[in-house]
Amino acid sequence: MPPRPHPARDLREACVDQALAIIGDVGLEALSIREVARRLGVSHQAPYKHFPSSDHLLAEVVRRTYRQFSEHLEARPRSSHPGEDLKSMGEAYLRFAIDHPLHYRLLFGTPLPDPAAHPEMMAEARRAFQLLHEAIGHLKPPTSETDRQLDALFVWATVHGLATILQTAALDQIGLDKVVLAEALPHALHRIGKALAP
Amino acid sequence: MPPRPHPARDLREACVDQALAIIGDVGLEALSIREVARRLGVSHQAPYKHFPSSDHLLAEVVRRTYRQFSEHLEARPRSSHPGEDLKSMGEAYLRFAIDHPLHYRLLFGTPLPDPAAHPEMMAEARRAFQLLHEAIGHLKPPTSETDRQLDALFVWATVHGLATILQTAALDQIGLDKVVLAEALPHALHRIGKALAP
Repeated sequence: MPPRPHPARDLREACVDQALAIIGDVGLEALSIREVARRLGVSHQAPYKHFPSSDHLLAEVVRRTYRQFSEHLEARPRSSHPGEDLKSMGEAYLRFAIDHPLHYRLLFGTPLPDPAAHPEMMAEARRAFQLLHEAIGHLKPPTSETDRQLDALFVWATVHGLATILQTAALDQIGLDKVVLAEALPHALHRIGKALAP
Repeated sequence: MPPRPHPARDLREACVDQALAIIGDVGLEALSIREVARRLGVSHQAPYKHFPSSDHLLAEVVRRTYRQFSEHLEARPRSSHPGEDLKSMGEAYLRFAIDHPLHYRLLFGTPLPDPAAHPEMMAEARRAFQLLHEAIGHLKPPTSETDRQLDALFVWATVHGLATILQTAALDQIGLDKVVLAEALPHALHRIGKALAP
């Protein structure tokens, strides 16, 4: 049965869904308005009512993915102890990377549309980074904004590095112990706590 | 002018060079013995004398890239102060990632041949990790092997995370200060030093 045409209101949503499906099935390079239209069984022109270009469509997919990521981080178990709360965020971060590898790679592992051309996407990206920034702000007495950004980048790098290493083939090459792999995140979070202690 | 046939001894080297060129030009998926032969202007069968499959060819490319990576790390400016030496290694690591993005991605960003089937590749991967492991061993009084591996993984994750973040589009999204970007590595290395201090 061929797919039925979508009402206008739903077409925008359907385009976003299909874009993510295409990225997952074939890769980012295969994303085009034409391919989205083909999969949806609508005219090649129809998606242009909602997205002027495939970059705009991608930017919307990325924007939503950042929002989903932020909501996931915000839904973490909270602790009134700032160090514990930062750990909880690290765990939530890694959980997202493991449970949603496609979304995670889309955010942090692929070329994205020009941020200057897509301010809504950029705003969601900043919001996610801001969550980390705030958690670090609670951890330490106020320092300079630069220092806080540097610490946020340090923590992000460590957890992002771990997320990608744990998913990469390189790790298999090294033949680390299973215990080491299981303990990798708690250990790194412990080290981060020590690194950021006053 | 069509490429000339290669003498047998050189063909192996030429296959390795072409494999890396294909990965760089088109991507890992495009690597095949047939495509290597086509680019070299030799018969489809010729490379099989040296590589039973494209996986074997890829494993050899990866093995050499790990070796090149290890040699780069070993050529770092040495310091008799273990903390400074670890920082120097962190800088050398990031320099490799920035100067050789294709090689770096090949090692840590793409699916690799089954390690069990390619022990020579795995040996070179272990050697690279071992360098970090040793530098951390100098830093601290001997602890358990598990602890040392965990710390090596923590340091690797941080520097790898930074290397990928600094090359990723995600960073542009956040709009961090240029000062923060320039200071990111020294700051992270400083934090690592504090995290690993006795």
